[in-house]
Amino acid sequence: MPKHAIRTAVKVDLNTPAWEQPQLHNRWHPDIPFSCKVQPGEVVNVECLDWTGGQIGNNDSADDIKNCDLSRIHYLSGPIEVEGAEPGDVLVVEIQDVQPLAEQPWGYCAIFDKNNGGGFLDSHYPNAAKAIWDFEGIFCSSRHIPGVRFPGLIHPGIMGCMPSQELLDTWNEREKELVSYHASIGTDRIVAQLPLEKFTHAGSADSDAAAKVAKEGARTIPPREHGGNCDIKNLSRGSKSYLPVYVKGAGLSIGDLHFSQGDGEISFCGAIEMAGVITIKCEIIKNGVKDLCMKNPMYIPGPVEPHYGPSRYLTFEGLSVDENGKQHYLDVNVAYKQTCLQFIEYFKKFGYSGEQLYILLSCAPVQGHIAAIVDIPNACTTLGVPVDIFEFECLPKEGGFEKIIATNCALTSE
Amino acid sequence: MPKHAIRTAVKVDLNTPAWEQPQLHNRWHPDIPFSCKVQPGEVVNVECLDWTGGQIGNNDSADDIKNCDLSRIHYLSGPIEVEGAEPGDVLVVEIQDVQPLAEQPWGYCAIFDKNNGGGFLDSHYPNAAKAIWDFEGIFCSSRHIPGVRFPGLIHPGIMGCMPSQELLDTWNEREKELVSYHASIGTDRIVAQLPLEKFTHAGSADSDAAAKVAKEGARTIPPREHGGNCDIKNLSRGSKSYLPVYVKGAGLSIGDLHFSQGDGEISFCGAIEMAGVITIKCEIIKNGVKDLCMKNPMYIPGPVEPHYGPSRYLTFEGLSVDENGKQHYLDVNVAYKQTCLQFIEYFKKFGYSGEQLYILLSCAPVQGHIAAIVDIPNACTTLGVPVDIFEFECLPKEGGFEKIIATNCALTSE
Amino acid sequence: MPKHAIRTAVKVDLNTPAWEQPQLHNRWHPDIPFSCKVQPGEVVNVECLDWTGGQIGNNDSADDIKNCDLSRIHYLSGPIEVEGAEPGDVLVVEIQDVQPLAEQPWGYCAIFDKNNGGGFLDSHYPNAAKAIWDFEGIFCSSRHIPGVRFPGLIHPGIMGCMPSQELLDTWNEREKELVSYHASIGTDRIVAQLPLEKFTHAGSADSDAAAKVAKEGARTIPPREHGGNCDIKNLSRGSKSYLPVYVKGAGLSIGDLHFSQGDGEISFCGAIEMAGVITIKCEIIKNGVKDLCMKNPMYIPGPVEPHYGPSRYLTFEGLSVDENGKQHYLDVNVAYKQTCLQFIEYFKKFGYSGEQLYILLSCAPVQGHIAAIVDIPNACTTLGVPVDIFEFECLPKEGGFEKIIATNCALTSE
Amino acid sequence: MPKHAIRTAVKVDLNTPAWEQPQLHNRWHPDIPFSCKVQPGEVVNVECLDWTGGQIGNNDSADDIKNCDLSRIHYLSGPIEVEGAEPGDVLVVEIQDVQPLAEQPWGYCAIFDKNNGGGFLDSHYPNAAKAIWDFEGIFCSSRHIPGVRFPGLIHPGIMGCMPSQELLDTWNEREKELVSYHASIGTDRIVAQLPLEKFTHAGSADSDAAAKVAKEGARTIPPREHGGNCDIKNLSRGSKSYLPVYVKGAGLSIGDLHFSQGDGEISFCGAIEMAGVITIKCEIIKNGVKDLCMKNPMYIPGPVEPHYGPSRYLTFEGLSVDENGKQHYLDVNVAYKQTCLQFIEYFKKFGYSGEQLYILLSCAPVQGHIAAIVDIPNACTTLGVPVDIFEFECLPKEGGFEKIIATNCALTSE
Repeated sequence: MPKHAIRTAVKVDLNTPAWEQPQLHNRWHPDIPFSCKVQPGEVVNVECLDWTGGQIGNNDSADDIKNCDLSRIHYLSGPIEVEGAEPGDVLVVEIQDVQPLAEQPWGYCAIFDKNNGGGFLDSHYPNAAKAIWDFEGIFCSSRHIPGVRFPGLIHPGIMGCMPSQELLDTWNEREKELVSYHASIGTDRIVAQLPLEKFTHAGSADSDAAAKVAKEGARTIPPREHGGNCDIKNLSRGSKSYLPVYVKGAGLSIGDLHFSQGDGEISFCGAIEMAGVITIKCEIIKNGVKDLCMKNPMYIPGPVEPHYGPSRYLTFEGLSVDENGKQHYLDVNVAYKQTCLQFIEYFKKFGYSGEQLYILLSCAPVQGHIAAIVDIPNACTTLGVPVDIFEFECLPKEGGFEKIIATNCALTSE
Repeated sequence: MPKHAIRTAVKVDLNTPAWEQPQLHNRWHPDIPFSCKVQPGEVVNVECLDWTGGQIGNNDSADDIKNCDLSRIHYLSGPIEVEGAEPGDVLVVEIQDVQPLAEQPWGYCAIFDKNNGGGFLDSHYPNAAKAIWDFEGIFCSSRHIPGVRFPGLIHPGIMGCMPSQELLDTWNEREKELVSYHASIGTDRIVAQLPLEKFTHAGSADSDAAAKVAKEGARTIPPREHGGNCDIKNLSRGSKSYLPVYVKGAGLSIGDLHFSQGDGEISFCGAIEMAGVITIKCEIIKNGVKDLCMKNPMYIPGPVEPHYGPSRYLTFEGLSVDENGKQHYLDVNVAYKQTCLQFIEYFKKFGYSGEQLYILLSCAPVQGHIAAIVDIPNACTTLGVPVDIFEFECLPKEGGFEKIIATNCALTSE
Repeated sequence: MPKHAIRTAVKVDLNTPAWEQPQLHNRWHPDIPFSCKVQPGEVVNVECLDWTGGQIGNNDSADDIKNCDLSRIHYLSGPIEVEGAEPGDVLVVEIQDVQPLAEQPWGYCAIFDKNNGGGFLDSHYPNAAKAIWDFEGIFCSSRHIPGVRFPGLIHPGIMGCMPSQELLDTWNEREKELVSYHASIGTDRIVAQLPLEKFTHAGSADSDAAAKVAKEGARTIPPREHGGNCDIKNLSRGSKSYLPVYVKGAGLSIGDLHFSQGDGEISFCGAIEMAGVITIKCEIIKNGVKDLCMKNPMYIPGPVEPHYGPSRYLTFEGLSVDENGKQHYLDVNVAYKQTCLQFIEYFKKFGYSGEQLYILLSCAPVQGHIAAIVDIPNACTTLGVPVDIFEFECLPKEGGFEKIIATNCALTSE
Repeated sequence: MPKHAIRTAVKVDLNTPAWEQPQLHNRWHPDIPFSCKVQPGEVVNVECLDWTGGQIGNNDSADDIKNCDLSRIHYLSGPIEVEGAEPGDVLVVEIQDVQPLAEQPWGYCAIFDKNNGGGFLDSHYPNAAKAIWDFEGIFCSSRHIPGVRFPGLIHPGIMGCMPSQELLDTWNEREKELVSYHASIGTDRIVAQLPLEKFTHAGSADSDAAAKVAKEGARTIPPREHGGNCDIKNLSRGSKSYLPVYVKGAGLSIGDLHFSQGDGEISFCGAIEMAGVITIKCEIIKNGVKDLCMKNPMYIPGPVEPHYGPSRYLTFEGLSVDENGKQHYLDVNVAYKQTCLQFIEYFKKFGYSGEQLYILLSCAPVQGHIAAIVDIPNACTTLGVPVDIFEFECLPKEGGFEKIIATNCALTSE
């Protein structure tokens, strides 16, 4: 039987506030009503807003980043009911394509202010900054970071099924404990974001349900065992994700599309964020959670990832000795931070600012590996950077390099 | 001018105790005399013992692992003087080949006892275990872990130049501080190994120098900013490493050859350990440390890494919520441990023991990535396992799997 | 400056006969007027009809293939004027994307009747047959060839600049000589297609120009030194083609889009033919023809080709001994035919018909290599088939295979 | 049970004439006695002479190539009896490694004189020339072709089982017919080499058998349906070949080792020829010839082929219009010749001689594809050259290139 154009299961409207669109939501809660229904094996399109719901503009100032309201983010498309899915099943989501919206062929990657979101290197780069990336088919380039160009490894940052009430309670409890503990020892960082009633968007829930969602609904920042904001750069075209199902109908939600991201998504708004459309097919493995011993999701990447030969990766190393020379015990976070800083120092020689490189490292397809984790007291991590994303020669050579980059990324107005 | 057979700059003798061979040493110290000299651009072979200097046998008991003397390890080949290298230069080491010794076509991978070395998962697997791996050209397989076979990504676990006295002092100081701090808070783990006079092997040093080396010489377990035991699985055939030079003549030492290793080398003796020969060519980048902003080594992998398509990697995820359900704050170590445990649980379904899988994960060419590190409170890591290393179908499917593996790896006698 | 949606330089209308659309043409001739103009560096979309201009339907009969009018094909989009391009320059065409039209998510691959087009194996498979392929994002599958599914290596079959009058004359002369020679020796095959007035479509040419084009215009079937119908499967997303320029403004024309094709495009309508849209950027290398010694086009493939590991290619060999046992002298055509037949015989064991396999071989991403061409009297070719396109295990094994495919492709009604 | 060093099943002696070594032979004939025996599943080493049996020296003159005696070549190691193999079975040969001999770390690639062997481009390059290649681990470079360096895709040029008498008769008959036909039409080329008594080496055959072999034995130049001199560059480390068995015990012979070869091996002595040792494991698929529909061998490449990203291949195209402008009908040989000539002209701009490039093209890992073979009258072939083998930038650019190569390869003394 002939094939028709693919049905769009979730549509978004770029000109309506996100919180007025009932097919979107920004909390994880089993009482958020399904926004649509699909059959196993059916191929559908799902449109998504960018993660800020349109707060960021295609301009040359980072003020919108500085002032971005982080309680109004992650308006996800869904929850999608999958006919026949039951708790204990595994939902297999094949991503058949992801594309930017034709009318919005650009995205952005940014550094958040240390006091509003922050990021992995915020003690070094505390101020907001931004780069706009233009899309040309599979490629992207930025007027704010000259000299680089690469194909996207396009993917959703967020994908997951709705938690059961029991799982939700577990999340809330353990995160509350973390917050309490850190409060007790006087940590000055925000270590987790507990439920927040303000700006909760519970999709098409009636007022009672909406109130419950507002009170209990899990925030969307962290990845959790259902998937969620796992920010895995390889969940791209052709990948298959295996997601645990906790509620009847699964309740799959998707959002936070990225044109490209590096391992770690280190600047927090670290991918090239965009609005777009994702084409998916869902299938069900009955009783898969038990049969496949699943606690967290699994996935298989797709066959069309951009590929460079292994000898085209300039690779930096870092250890768990911090920038003040202090020795930490097998701490991968410290090691990876040092690895990232090594990359930044190296490429500054070409004239880039630290902010440009911090952004680039967040969104280019870099490979962050855990190299060694048992050789006390030093963990060792590596960061592989594909040299073919640069439009100039950047491999190590005698005599060092000339400065060739003369402009900076978008900064704030003060 | 015709080419002659490649000169062997360092030879080892499998039948003499490692500590009696003056071309070897087991500490990092600038006063260890050079064991040989090479010219920039010269290609030489360097033979190496296995990391234990021959303590482990090709047999079916893990008693030798349990009783392995960890103060008698890492007999490195060198230090090699590179003509013309000076402090501040960068030594470029191209690895042109690595091979097992023809007379010893096997290696081993092991779990160390929690009280003697331990490993990343020692709270789950506290007892010693071992697998012998047989080499067949580029491939290896193990009678102790049936059903898998893969080509080696063969490499040295340790490579680095001798530290200057100043750098050595810095190492000793910061590691001593770590030990003191952990002692002060009552940590019951060994967090670092400070200089130890017993069993120090200072190569061909005279007694005065040997005494100084014994007293101050840095132990070889951790990677440090000179490289050292970085255990990076991709430093294989065809790779180029950029190493900082701290002393006149560089003093390059190499050892701890691995036939194959997974990211993390998680079981500590986590690679397929072997004796072998490495073919290298050294070149010098004058003033490279400053010109290339080097604090730690950099490298470029070689072009002949085994390659599977991206869609042949079954990939597990893990979060910074530990096995007791406790929430940790962006802790990559916790997340990677959970990721590893997910792999183990999945493959147990085929009949493997946990010990077999812990060993396999340590030595097979698995990819451990830092996926997301800013989405509070959860870090997310991934572990990609190439399915083509298994001789049976292992992709997720409805109905689960049959047990097909019926034998275990080598265990201890009690 | 913000980026706007990409301009569509050539639009097509699926509901109007191709020959009534003035932005299309079906001959190569310098007098065909430009259909639009682009600037160097500008990114534009170019829509294209399928190569038959809509003669083939999404149905289960191959009658439309059998009766396809081959004088009404290759309605190309263009010629596109590139500002500033002059004879002797090289036009660099970067393909930034190729997509099917959203309203037509399917394509077809077919065997032409031996008396109407024929194909590489028409002495074995003389009758028309057809398979419809459905697109699901990056993947395609066919109800007519069950058991296979693969991502497209999507590309234009035809791309080239308009010939000068001088080059056109050369083409016509040498092809006429070939026809004359074959007529003189009584060949019963059509060996080339000379200019044909009937059904010539000269775009928006006025009647005088149209008459000249009809009389002299080169037919579009063969590739020639300007590119043309070169059917190179790797001219896909991200590729860069270097095309000689022969007339002021270049006159770039594009068409015959393929969702996927195997090396050789052996069944003639051998790719998965489709209507679609291609996104391109043109740049000019002044005097490139001389500086780069170009006689024929060059290209660099894109970085996102589907990739399987090398050990996932089952590879067949063939020699220049034909199916009757006759020895030919270093004849690559004979060898490649034998190689193709080997593939077909092997996979028939699974229950496929020869026609299904002939079609599959034409359109799946198979690698056809010239292995040896100097070992008299046998040429040797190879054909690598990625086993991951099959949904069942197909590697050689003892005991042979079971028939698992029970249905055939679309055949003709008689 | 512990693993011992791998047994060497066939040893060669570099200091004894090849024809005096009974474990070698240079004809295909079922009466050549087995030289050794292996068990299915056993891993053994097989040493091999270079294809000329040592006629070519590591020097700077091509006189030895000019005068090479082509009736004294291809001294193959074997035939190896495989226990249990019977006619109709398929022999699976896994190549576990191939290495040059440690005492001879070099090889050569050469152009044969048009009157002594010739080659694919001998009408353009009729004179003998030579390049010596030095091996540095996985890499090779040549003092005769500066500016290039690449890892070997090391493989045997010849591998095959002994023909039955019936198959041998078929070969002799069909090749004799070809010679007769060409004689009848006055071809001035040698089109095939029929049995030749002179210099026949029948291994350890007694005089009666040796006489029969001399009279009937098939020459070793062409590949045939048993495999033989198929010169497939991907039969490298880790590959599996499926070879038909025609006689009891299989009678596997191997030789003509290559360090590297390009598709086509176009200069005839077109690979980097070397003496070396190959490590193999043989297994048997009973009745495989029928069950797998095998007429010619099949193979699966190994997982460690050197790999460059697809966008690192500069790719040339050629058509079946010859260098005189004459149109040929779908002739792949003509097209591939034109493609090769395009490569040569392009790289001459850097200062290379045509001979250097002809040699380079023969032995570097270039990809020769059959792009289109049905678009009358032009066949189209492509030649992909990995740019990373060059030590300088060679991608197309405005303004052309500077000459940077100033020396030539080895030529003859006149």
